[in-house]
Amino acid sequence: MATPVKVYGPPMSTAVSRVLACLIEKNVDFQLVSVNMSKGEHKKPEFLKMQPFGQVPAFQDDSISLFESRAICRYICEKHADKGNKGLYGTNPLAKASVDQWLEAESQSFNPPSSVLVFQLAFAPRMKLKQDPVAIKQNEDKLAKVLQVYEKRLGESRFLAGDEFSLADLSHLPNTQYLVTAANKAELFTSNKNVGRWWAEISSRDSWKKVVEMQKTAK
Amino acid sequence: MATPVKVYGPPMSTAVSRVLACLIEKNVDFQLVSVNMSKGEHKKPEFLKMQPFGQVPAFQDDSISLFESRAICRYICEKHADKGNKGLYGTNPLAKASVDQWLEAESQSFNPPSSVLVFQLAFAPRMKLKQDPVAIKQNEDKLAKVLQVYEKRLGESRFLAGDEFSLADLSHLPNTQYLVTAANKAELFTSNKNVGRWWAEISSRDSWKKVVEMQKTAK
Repeated sequence: MATPVKVYGPPMSTAVSRVLACLIEKNVDFQLVSVNMSKGEHKKPEFLKMQPFGQVPAFQDDSISLFESRAICRYICEKHADKGNKGLYGTNPLAKASVDQWLEAESQSFNPPSSVLVFQLAFAPRMKLKQDPVAIKQNEDKLAKVLQVYEKRLGESRFLAGDEFSLADLSHLPNTQYLVTAANKAELFTSNKNVGRWWAEISSRDSWKKVVEMQKTAK
Repeated sequence: MATPVKVYGPPMSTAVSRVLACLIEKNVDFQLVSVNMSKGEHKKPEFLKMQPFGQVPAFQDDSISLFESRAICRYICEKHADKGNKGLYGTNPLAKASVDQWLEAESQSFNPPSSVLVFQLAFAPRMKLKQDPVAIKQNEDKLAKVLQVYEKRLGESRFLAGDEFSLADLSHLPNTQYLVTAANKAELFTSNKNVGRWWAEISSRDSWKKVVEMQKTAK
């Protein structure tokens, strides 16, 4: 039996939970290694050898040490092409290009405003930090515009990259989960009919429910 | 002979020039299709069918229509694996994972501060827009920290992803070109010995010199 891969970081981190959802979809055994960020463990020399920017997650298997959640997800899908959800990164070059396109849309258009909102609305109150109402308003407007594009796209296809659930959809789960639950911003999503239908479907996958359970247990 | 692929957008756009550099490295014939952004052509219905966010570039070949520069570059490298620079996206799964990791570092860590600086320092004056000194200072500090990580990495390997020039290095060319030339920020790079050496090497590649020439001709 293969040695489980290692994921370093707390499951509450959006980037860590992206990798966890991918590993569960691909049915790859993993070991979650604790990194206590409130104690600054992600800035210590040992950790910086794996993740030079001092962020989570870091990832290791027998062959390689990696950082950056979307790069880790791509690697997991390529290495374990025949395991678990085989279509997660597309099963042919054109399907894969569509996954890459919408994964980049998540990374470039969806993630910047949604990660600001997650920080401001979900994390700042827990960390007793002052919220920035101007940043909240600006980024809510930006996100609403991105979701208009998604609304049209999801009227044409069941999932972002096509008819199958893919890494592109998966990559939206961590931020959206916080926005819908902890940040009280469900309406941003459900006010768009197709986006609401898509969120209901992707968030009810067993893989994601397991990650949410891990987040609750870790608290 | 294959029909040239089409790239829609002005070569002055950093995202367009990223795709052009990739096509030239891979020795793939292309046709550049003008999109007059000052006339709002990127927001018209015909263009939005190809690029629903109303940004440039859009890309088309016989098989597919794509947007998002880094996704387009990945597709070009996968489809034309045996053409031009064969190692641009790695020649084995581990090399490819390293390219993806540093391409994500560019996308997530380098691009956000550097694209703000490019806009503020190079484009705002041309467009007669007021500069934001607070944003300039904040993003210069952020970029300097990112370049400290690069400095260490480039002390260990010749290029970001390893010993060969790759898509990860290429993806830094468009923003860095503006920062070094139009924005008068060369020192941010050259004050780091290894980063300076790396920039001199990657910016003197024939592919990139051709793109810079296209940018000059298009002005």
